[in-house]
Amino acid sequence: MRKLLQQGAASTAFENPVFIQSTASIVGKKEGEGPLKDYFDLICEDPMFGADTWESAESAMQKEAATIAIGKAGLKPEEIRMAFAGDLLAQAAASSFGIAEMGIPFYGLYGACSTMGESLSLGAMAVAAGYGDHVLCATSSHFASAEKEFRFPLGYGNQRPLSATWTVTGSGACVLGTEPPGTGVSPDAQVLREYKGCAVITEITTGKLVDYGFRDSLNMGGCMAPAACDTIYQHLFDFGRSPGDYDAIVTGDLGMVGQKILLDLLSEKNIDIRDIHEDCGLLIFNNKAQDTHSGGSGCGCAAAVLSAYLLPKVAKGDWKRILFVPTGAMLSKVSFNEGDSVPGIAHAVVIEHTEA
Amino acid sequence: MRKLLQQGAASTAFENPVFIQSTASIVGKKEGEGPLKDYFDLICEDPMFGADTWESAESAMQKEAATIAIGKAGLKPEEIRMAFAGDLLAQAAASSFGIAEMGIPFYGLYGACSTMGESLSLGAMAVAAGYGDHVLCATSSHFASAEKEFRFPLGYGNQRPLSATWTVTGSGACVLGTEPPGTGVSPDAQVLREYKGCAVITEITTGKLVDYGFRDSLNMGGCMAPAACDTIYQHLFDFGRSPGDYDAIVTGDLGMVGQKILLDLLSEKNIDIRDIHEDCGLLIFNNKAQDTHSGGSGCGCAAAVLSAYLLPKVAKGDWKRILFVPTGAMLSKVSFNEGDSVPGIAHAVVIEHTEA
Repeated sequence: MRKLLQQGAASTAFENPVFIQSTASIVGKKEGEGPLKDYFDLICEDPMFGADTWESAESAMQKEAATIAIGKAGLKPEEIRMAFAGDLLAQAAASSFGIAEMGIPFYGLYGACSTMGESLSLGAMAVAAGYGDHVLCATSSHFASAEKEFRFPLGYGNQRPLSATWTVTGSGACVLGTEPPGTGVSPDAQVLREYKGCAVITEITTGKLVDYGFRDSLNMGGCMAPAACDTIYQHLFDFGRSPGDYDAIVTGDLGMVGQKILLDLLSEKNIDIRDIHEDCGLLIFNNKAQDTHSGGSGCGCAAAVLSAYLLPKVAKGDWKRILFVPTGAMLSKVSFNEGDSVPGIAHAVVIEHTEA
Repeated sequence: MRKLLQQGAASTAFENPVFIQSTASIVGKKEGEGPLKDYFDLICEDPMFGADTWESAESAMQKEAATIAIGKAGLKPEEIRMAFAGDLLAQAAASSFGIAEMGIPFYGLYGACSTMGESLSLGAMAVAAGYGDHVLCATSSHFASAEKEFRFPLGYGNQRPLSATWTVTGSGACVLGTEPPGTGVSPDAQVLREYKGCAVITEITTGKLVDYGFRDSLNMGGCMAPAACDTIYQHLFDFGRSPGDYDAIVTGDLGMVGQKILLDLLSEKNIDIRDIHEDCGLLIFNNKAQDTHSGGSGCGCAAAVLSAYLLPKVAKGDWKRILFVPTGAMLSKVSFNEGDSVPGIAHAVVIEHTEA
């Protein structure tokens, strides 16, 4: 039983923190050659993940990430009370043929590349309210299925402007729970714990759609930066904090172009996050050496970097409190071709180090 | 502060009921000629809803339904703590350019035609846990945008087998809240109340994906019936009840073909819901006279029938307790063309009459 505080218009603080039990991350070959290569649970050399189509490949990868996360938490799928998952494909197909198939009560989400933030938010809300002892949060993206979905099939060989990001082939999954990781499970479980330290979700800020009228689907960072700015500003306002209260503010996939816009937009509001800003899309690739232009993107980008790199760093205590703010560009092939703008949305999750 | 019970593997009972403050329903011309024509808030003769594309038409309709629901609740958009909405289009485009644009903290969902069940479930969970005094739940579908998304553009003039359903052009929206409808708002507000009676959400059962391997996207009722069976069975099991404990069990859009399969599947488990089964897809059209074959479908079908017809009937006390179980077929154009099966999912929500 948890008492909940509400602050401001868009944020919620959980009186009792939600413990992150375990994480899993799977990426493709290219991601496995990047700066974070030593952190992922699995690097798959086969871009088809043993399947026949790009979409099935993504489903296989996502299901595997979920299976690893549940296993590392020392649990079985039937002990997961509900799953919150989504992806970039039309009708969330990667999830419907991925995690949804695991027999876990399932809520499908769509938040474009912000989906891991949405998933963690709804998962934490469910756990904090006592609706389940353990829930699963996961997302995925795949370079080839995303190019086919939003732009051109790979065989077309289209050229990419420097503002374009590179959709990450990857999936990240976390199990959330009411008790500190390792409670009541086998001591062999590979829970997210470093000696006494672990990671908890303490607060969330729900994103609003922000539309500056940008229409360039090959500059998603630019389309999403205003949403990141809006959510970060709202978050700091709701809790009366400043950037100095965080060891890192980590966006999802703004890339180089979007990062610059975000920093500019925030400085117009007299908020300076320059020294503590990280972006999963800039962490996962060496843009110059790997020819990934503005950086990595896709909801698998934020999810895999969170699971592999950010959360262990918080559990260790290298970071005491971070704000994870993945951003999504709400476009479809149809909306783009019909000349609509590309609005953005960003969901923020506060993750803190604790000893419990 | 609400104490929550958990029963069984997939159901949650809210100790304090969640009050449905108001409802809104908008439909197109064909739906406005059907048996429920006198119940909808708005029947729009123009299938374009004043917009330039089918997708924008759906967005306009959805946003209007949300605006009406919020207005009838006696609230302003800024008093809605969060919105849970989705639709059938790729990347939930109708919602991204619809309700998401209203400046309300927004969670995008994808549950195909079960989305109103998912939306009400997550909305009720949020309100029952104290995360917000008022939340908005909504979905939409549009015949023309759905035909284009899943089958053929209308201009192609394809023929439809008798097992096919007709996607409803419609949207339904509900505002949920912690207090009885009408509390603290203008007495002029058109809240969902009949003298002393109103409607509350008391329990939910979260659906699991069920895949019998059906591949016929023109027999969605057949694809979804096993999921409806699974969720209804799980619900009755979790709460130790029988069909006689409900005045009606209302599925979303199984149509004539799916209804028959559902009744057969349940009778194999010795459960007989024959006398109390209703289906929104069978309620909204006169199939013979309106040439809609197996019945209406689409997440706007269940949402509009719920908002216009089912909820007022519960508020009046004609029904004391119903189980609302919209079903979704988790397919995409790509998954269908790649030969995948069409799995189904169904989310159940218990709605009860109360005097408060």
